[in-house]
Amino acid sequence: MHMAIRIAICAPSATLPRELVAPVREVASCFEGVELHFHEQCFYEAGHFAGTDEQRLEALLDCANDPTIDAVWFARGGYGSNRICEAALTYLSREADRKVFLGSSDAGYLLGSLYKAGIGRPVHAPMPLDIKRHRGAEAVERVLAWMKGEAAPIEPTLDHRPTVAFNLTTLAMLAGTRFMPDLRGHVVMVEEVSEYLYSVDRLFFHTVEVLKGMDIAGLRLGRVSDVPENDREFGADAETIAKDWCARAGIQYLGRADIGHDHANRIVPFGQQRDFVPG
Amino acid sequence: MHMAIRIAICAPSATLPRELVAPVREVASCFEGVELHFHEQCFYEAGHFAGTDEQRLEALLDCANDPTIDAVWFARGGYGSNRICEAALTYLSREADRKVFLGSSDAGYLLGSLYKAGIGRPVHAPMPLDIKRHRGAEAVERVLAWMKGEAAPIEPTLDHRPTVAFNLTTLAMLAGTRFMPDLRGHVVMVEEVSEYLYSVDRLFFHTVEVLKGMDIAGLRLGRVSDVPENDREFGADAETIAKDWCARAGIQYLGRADIGHDHANRIVPFGQQRDFVPG
Repeated sequence: MHMAIRIAICAPSATLPRELVAPVREVASCFEGVELHFHEQCFYEAGHFAGTDEQRLEALLDCANDPTIDAVWFARGGYGSNRICEAALTYLSREADRKVFLGSSDAGYLLGSLYKAGIGRPVHAPMPLDIKRHRGAEAVERVLAWMKGEAAPIEPTLDHRPTVAFNLTTLAMLAGTRFMPDLRGHVVMVEEVSEYLYSVDRLFFHTVEVLKGMDIAGLRLGRVSDVPENDREFGADAETIAKDWCARAGIQYLGRADIGHDHANRIVPFGQQRDFVPG
Repeated sequence: MHMAIRIAICAPSATLPRELVAPVREVASCFEGVELHFHEQCFYEAGHFAGTDEQRLEALLDCANDPTIDAVWFARGGYGSNRICEAALTYLSREADRKVFLGSSDAGYLLGSLYKAGIGRPVHAPMPLDIKRHRGAEAVERVLAWMKGEAAPIEPTLDHRPTVAFNLTTLAMLAGTRFMPDLRGHVVMVEEVSEYLYSVDRLFFHTVEVLKGMDIAGLRLGRVSDVPENDREFGADAETIAKDWCARAGIQYLGRADIGHDHANRIVPFGQQRDFVPG
């Protein structure tokens, strides 16, 4: 076993601005034995995406199938990882099984698909792009500290029950498809950003319709931030919406979770992994 | 049988501005024997919606369960009809079975749910709110002409195959839930408005994932209009996106359909109803 923790970074969704590499590396320099390997594909551009589907897939496979790498960290969200889920599940090798996969937001398509397929250890976590945020260094530190074995960066409400965490739109788009994991007995955490409250309500309608058949343990709501102003008040806040749909679906509403599109976003290892720490 | 065609109008989603009643009535005055009955609930306001869920449900039942009414016309979309689908299916009486239900956009939740449940004749059609549009009177005329037995307002590509038409977001939110009709053998038409192309791409990902298991006859794309400008070009237009996802899913792409959020939006009776005309 190598002594260093080697983290490979690729971008299955949108492009990582190259100027963010230095500040992320600066944070990592305080974590002895942690090596960051930015795949060149992070900086590719093809329309909306960080390269074509083929380029993004190939970079993911480069990272995940490399036996010298311990963890694959998704550079950012921004839409697009769903387009390579199917091919990724086909081409990931056994090397992927012992790896941690870290990301959130749009990266949830891959995390959910990997979890469904039983490949590796998917983990909801901040991403390199978060360095841009106010106090963004803390988000990056949280990931690296957890990778070195610290438990503090983990979502504090985690208990003995298996858990997943998703962006609500991402989970809604997975829900009902082949890539949707069976979440029986799970605590399901969701967060959202930049969506009108009527859209949040609509996403909950769809998502609980699928979850209600799965006998989940319950739902926790992360932050619903940067809600755009609409031409009229929706008439209920995000937590009221979540509680309402949980009640309609017979799903237990468990309270808030400390996740969201912000620097404070906590780490949620998928499954029954409260006590799992890598390294 | 009464000689008049009596159309009841209610608002299962958002509020109809009262000042639009007069111009809609003016169009209707040219159609002898057509009576419009605006339910007072159309003008209710409760946060985002045209009244509470209970008020919107009650108005729908008032219209649909009234034996003297021939058709229920949804006043407009705007989000919310999904919140009363389940209760509507429970409380609609046999009177609803011989009625035509007309609407589009957000009203698609009800049309889809009715179709799934085999209640009445759901019809994708313009709505009273469309009177606001440039050449909006033509949209309203199209519905009334069809209700009087004219075939010209019908989507021209309709053939012997059963067909449905939906707003893409609405269909995506239905897809995977209990309210999603089995679309085996159907031509599925979709249109979208005011969504970024990355969002259209994401909605197609989800929707074809569900449709691919249904062995549908094929997909037709209506208009994708008022696409907001993003910080970068998506890299493909809406038809390329539709073709791409159809190809991935093994769904036949059949070409364009003359539907959309505009005055030209055509009528698409759900199911095998090309030759069905009411009245």
